[in-house]
Amino acid sequence: MRIAVDAMGGDNAPKEIVKGCLRAAREFSDVTLVLYGKEEAIRNELSEDLPNIEIVHSEEVVKSDDDPVRSIRRKKESSMVKAAYSVKNGENHALFSAGNTGALLAAGTLIIGRMKGIDRPGLLATFPALSDKRAVFNMIDVGANADSKPLNINQYATLGTYYSKHVHGIVKPTVGLLNNGTEENKGNDLSKSSYALLKENDAINFIGNVEARDLLDGVADVVVTDGFTGNAVLKTIEGTAISLMSVIKGAIMDNGIKAKLGGLMLKDSLKEVKDLLDYSKYGGAVLFGLKAPVIKTHGSATEEPVYHTIRQIREMLESSLLEDLIRHFENQ
Amino acid sequence: MRIAVDAMGGDNAPKEIVKGCLRAAREFSDVTLVLYGKEEAIRNELSEDLPNIEIVHSEEVVKSDDDPVRSIRRKKESSMVKAAYSVKNGENHALFSAGNTGALLAAGTLIIGRMKGIDRPGLLATFPALSDKRAVFNMIDVGANADSKPLNINQYATLGTYYSKHVHGIVKPTVGLLNNGTEENKGNDLSKSSYALLKENDAINFIGNVEARDLLDGVADVVVTDGFTGNAVLKTIEGTAISLMSVIKGAIMDNGIKAKLGGLMLKDSLKEVKDLLDYSKYGGAVLFGLKAPVIKTHGSATEEPVYHTIRQIREMLESSLLEDLIRHFENQ
Repeated sequence: MRIAVDAMGGDNAPKEIVKGCLRAAREFSDVTLVLYGKEEAIRNELSEDLPNIEIVHSEEVVKSDDDPVRSIRRKKESSMVKAAYSVKNGENHALFSAGNTGALLAAGTLIIGRMKGIDRPGLLATFPALSDKRAVFNMIDVGANADSKPLNINQYATLGTYYSKHVHGIVKPTVGLLNNGTEENKGNDLSKSSYALLKENDAINFIGNVEARDLLDGVADVVVTDGFTGNAVLKTIEGTAISLMSVIKGAIMDNGIKAKLGGLMLKDSLKEVKDLLDYSKYGGAVLFGLKAPVIKTHGSATEEPVYHTIRQIREMLESSLLEDLIRHFENQ
Repeated sequence: MRIAVDAMGGDNAPKEIVKGCLRAAREFSDVTLVLYGKEEAIRNELSEDLPNIEIVHSEEVVKSDDDPVRSIRRKKESSMVKAAYSVKNGENHALFSAGNTGALLAAGTLIIGRMKGIDRPGLLATFPALSDKRAVFNMIDVGANADSKPLNINQYATLGTYYSKHVHGIVKPTVGLLNNGTEENKGNDLSKSSYALLKENDAINFIGNVEARDLLDGVADVVVTDGFTGNAVLKTIEGTAISLMSVIKGAIMDNGIKAKLGGLMLKDSLKEVKDLLDYSKYGGAVLFGLKAPVIKTHGSATEEPVYHTIRQIREMLESSLLEDLIRHFENQ
């Protein structure tokens, strides 16, 4: 399998992207990584010559503040656009970038194209569930469409169900609709209309409304919501975890020798907590509902998340996820 | 000043409500608390006879699963409805309940009534800011209107500004619009239209879009958003904090004697963190934009939050908050 990598996307490109690719290429001999970007800059970071790493020179770069759609239309020689066309043409099987999210969404939708039966792709992210109920859960949409419609949310539910089955091995994933209460009649116009569609969706195991309070407790395998709310929830989880860990660190450092000693003795345990929260090990966010996997990782991604994202793409390509989804939506 | 208390609302009513009222009545001799509810049940919890505690017997109770509007219309003899009418009639100056949120919103809007110039009241909650930038921030709407309009969000901004000035003493509170990016052109249809109105609002100090990731870092004094997103963010903060603290506790308990000892030495520091997160000390959520203060506290509230909520209502009544707001909206 061949993965097209935008080697110039993200704050640490190409250095960390190349390092992550090297690690993945060493481990997965069945994967060929095709790095799109400035050849010299990439070669400078390539500490090793591996048979399953290729480079395709591309002169331009889509910058993080470029207008998404315009940059995709005009920067034909950019690493992201050339990588996207290689997937559209069938030369490569998936697209990976840590660059401009909006531009990647546009490249995915406009160049690679939507799966038949999908109106708008959604962004799926995997989170750790901090309880015994389940190890992880998937939320979709975490930001592809700021104005999702009930139809989109219902399609996200099917997409998330297939993802949870194929990538996480859950036999009958539970699907919850993020809402402001658990009762059926709760919500805004959008969530009420979405509920009605989800209830009739035979492809999913719908368990009704779920509340944001219970997400990290592992209330469902798949949580569906519109892209505006999902984005706010994703960023609230990140922000709360970061603020809390920093307050705890402050409380350890500012409370005298006893607290400092206690902190030292707890170092391994707190590291464990930090690792548990680090969801980069579950890979990047999948722009889901396209003809091929398109994956976005954090702009600040370093070697480790890049490696995990490639591992995740390999899992998606190895399974029959895309084929099964295409078959499902063709039969609708 | 006289505060009408729904003594039967909440999971721990009337016991914890009465205990919190006793503490507040002892401390604030300028406040008279009028407890609405079953007289005998209230008397059983009243360990002391205080001149500034009165009881008004009411036979019925609005239950947590009662239909909000219907219960307000039909349960005329309930503690909540009778307390609301006492505020409407001017016998009392504010309404406090730990009961059914929807019913309290309905009682506030249908019985006490909206302030002139306010289309829909919003629910305002105060959170700790876990950085040096500011001590607290206010978010409105955290759940009164699942389908807020740009007009409502603009009114929330003015309401939040006055609250921050009068209750938290901030001279020129900054107002941020919760959005999925900080750039002006970001957002869904609702946030884009709201941005345009906020930019023209002379009564506020608008600083543009803010992201959920930066809320607890204290990015603004007032954060405005629609009630659906605000509710999701509020519950995500709660859920993430609870899950994280429980994971840390688990890491301390399950990692042998060294970690346990470390946890013991850190006990005071972790308690400090927990106290910092406990936003019940900032009082309850204000249903804001009505002719009188209507305050809701958690259904699970115990003596402590009840006491803090009465303290908060006293601060609202002591300041010229309501008068200033009424004057502002009359001049619009």
